[in-house]
Amino acid sequence: MRTKDEQKRKALIEATVKLVNEIGFAASSVSKIAKEANVSPSTLYVFFKNKEDLLVSTYVEIKMELSRAMLNDFDDALPIRDILRNVWFSAFKYISNNLEYYQFIEQFANSPYSELVDREALEEHFIPLIEVLHRGIAHKIIKDVDRNLLAAFLFHPLSFLANPRLCHDWQLNAQELETAFDMAWDAIKL
Amino acid sequence: MRTKDEQKRKALIEATVKLVNEIGFAASSVSKIAKEANVSPSTLYVFFKNKEDLLVSTYVEIKMELSRAMLNDFDDALPIRDILRNVWFSAFKYISNNLEYYQFIEQFANSPYSELVDREALEEHFIPLIEVLHRGIAHKIIKDVDRNLLAAFLFHPLSFLANPRLCHDWQLNAQELETAFDMAWDAIKL
Repeated sequence: MRTKDEQKRKALIEATVKLVNEIGFAASSVSKIAKEANVSPSTLYVFFKNKEDLLVSTYVEIKMELSRAMLNDFDDALPIRDILRNVWFSAFKYISNNLEYYQFIEQFANSPYSELVDREALEEHFIPLIEVLHRGIAHKIIKDVDRNLLAAFLFHPLSFLANPRLCHDWQLNAQELETAFDMAWDAIKL
Repeated sequence: MRTKDEQKRKALIEATVKLVNEIGFAASSVSKIAKEANVSPSTLYVFFKNKEDLLVSTYVEIKMELSRAMLNDFDDALPIRDILRNVWFSAFKYISNNLEYYQFIEQFANSPYSELVDREALEEHFIPLIEVLHRGIAHKIIKDVDRNLLAAFLFHPLSFLANPRLCHDWQLNAQELETAFDMAWDAIKL
């Protein structure tokens, strides 16, 4: 069971996502976010130093939830393609089910606030995935290219495919989802 | 040379991109946009019916400029891979040089305003590209999959790779750019 404090903190995170998605970063003031979360501004400052801290914490919390979802079925004993397939399908499921979170992190990543994130600390949550990519490169299964390139083809099309609005209301069926992973794999495999 | 009217219209489009990127759709009022563009609100209404019309027109104008940039080097006589390579590099160049436009169209596509766009009219500007994909499928060069899937792997990683902020300040060199296109091609080729 969540403590009262955890509930308040969670409510503030949810309110931040909702308001930023609706009215943008600039208009989402601390007082509006506190009101949306049904807590007083002074309570907000118990949990977060300021607006920047609230925005960055919201981003980090969603990214950590995404990493847990992606690594949920992670099984290092499987062949590399199967490991990545599980991660890929888990990422697709998480994004499809949490489009509002995903919209927030995409906007955030595109904003100057993204420079305030401790990237190294965040990357630690993705270490099993990063290691499997390195292993794939070492075993000449995956192309020996910068990790940003692998991420661009493995995960970036997902954010488009998982979002019916971006895809003109087209939604992938189970077969097309398999095809989409095959295409991602074709892009990164040696 | 641009007429005065064209200059005013262009100033309004530029002001819309700037304000929406800075303060979001909700806070970008017609009066703020007119002020930013240095025209009176009544002048704005000579060119655009209302805020929705201004936002949709800005989106359509950028997409048309993008389509012209992408199809700039289009040569139907080349092999399909070379045609797509030219389109891909032109798209990369356009996005890299117009990140603020691209940020606007990504936000717009993710907003409810995107439902107001006449998609069929817009698609007409991309017909040569759509036809080359169909030809590639017919000749068993390109995978016979939904066009959204081809677009997801051919063009969506671009928006990530062309944006240093999203790539943690990593920028592709000429060789990595070739590799990135090779990966896109590997994803879509049969």
